[in-house]
Amino acid sequence: MTGSADETEALRHRLKMAKRKAAQDAEVASKTILEKGLLVVHTGNGKGKSTAAFGLLLRALGHGFPCGVVQFVKGGRETGERRAFERFSDLLVWHTMGEGFTWETQDRDRDKRAAEAAWCRARELMDRPDLKLLVLDELNIVLRYGYLPLAEVVAVLAARRSDLHVVVTGRNAKPELIEAADLVTEMSLVKHPFAAGVRAQAGIEF
Amino acid sequence: MTGSADETEALRHRLKMAKRKAAQDAEVASKTILEKGLLVVHTGNGKGKSTAAFGLLLRALGHGFPCGVVQFVKGGRETGERRAFERFSDLLVWHTMGEGFTWETQDRDRDKRAAEAAWCRARELMDRPDLKLLVLDELNIVLRYGYLPLAEVVAVLAARRSDLHVVVTGRNAKPELIEAADLVTEMSLVKHPFAAGVRAQAGIEF
Repeated sequence: MTGSADETEALRHRLKMAKRKAAQDAEVASKTILEKGLLVVHTGNGKGKSTAAFGLLLRALGHGFPCGVVQFVKGGRETGERRAFERFSDLLVWHTMGEGFTWETQDRDRDKRAAEAAWCRARELMDRPDLKLLVLDELNIVLRYGYLPLAEVVAVLAARRSDLHVVVTGRNAKPELIEAADLVTEMSLVKHPFAAGVRAQAGIEF
Repeated sequence: MTGSADETEALRHRLKMAKRKAAQDAEVASKTILEKGLLVVHTGNGKGKSTAAFGLLLRALGHGFPCGVVQFVKGGRETGERRAFERFSDLLVWHTMGEGFTWETQDRDRDKRAAEAAWCRARELMDRPDLKLLVLDELNIVLRYGYLPLAEVVAVLAARRSDLHVVVTGRNAKPELIEAADLVTEMSLVKHPFAAGVRAQAGIEF
């Protein structure tokens, strides 16, 4: 390319980017609601639903906001995130309920009681006026198995105070919950290493 | 329901869960590769790509693994996650490169130089024998704009040592990168509060 062609190309790029910035600035300016607690749902058959919820949690903790977590389904092993969040015990309340994945216990009544206890803790945390963000990890699983009354759960979430963010995770989110949510992301599996015979690893799966 | 019908239902549930557990145990037993550094890609137009990467990072840090982050595109404001991760400075190396989003600078040459400098830092971190996980945040954006040679980037990632996990984020992941990856998740937008006039908020968007 000649010097002049280079220059033309650089100017064209600058023009394109300036247009894009103007469009973005206009979009930001059009948003008039400054603060609103969001009901966020992470669903889908892919990885990253709980992981992204914990990323949001970390972000909120970084801003110094008091936060809470209720895990409705507990895996067998101690997880890396659980240990990492111990460094935030000044800001974070964490409840892990349940007895392991439901296909580990094979006892519907026990699972149901555990789900109800977890939902109680969630409601208690929602009543705390200082809390800024609450993660209800794997609540979708519990709703899917019918361990909690869907209509009540959705009504309580919808009636929460207006500046509290709630993040709900788990596959097969109920349509009623999606309807009530502000922000819904579906995590889809494109490619998974289990298919290539690789076991779950510390730091990736747990 | 009569007591007997309850009992039948409970037994049916237990049988179903036992079958599911057996299937899951068999699947886990079939995995023979115990440890392998994964190339993980988070892409798609939805939220949660970087957030889930930072969730993975947190998980790895919770296990006490030394980790690194290179951010190829820098937002204008200080983020909650950046501040939160300061509590892990004993384990984590963090480089933020670039001069803000490319549509903020409108200078292709400067953006390209920043991308090249970031890629240098990424290669240096890949050479560290103790590192367990490396996040290359928004590398996909930089590849999409052609600021780095795609073939070289993919080749270097493919040739990294076999026990290093690398997580690449950003929309529009290149097919060559997806081909080289072990685990690919697409985050899709189902519902977004921007559409309802809500501004980006601390703890959610940054």
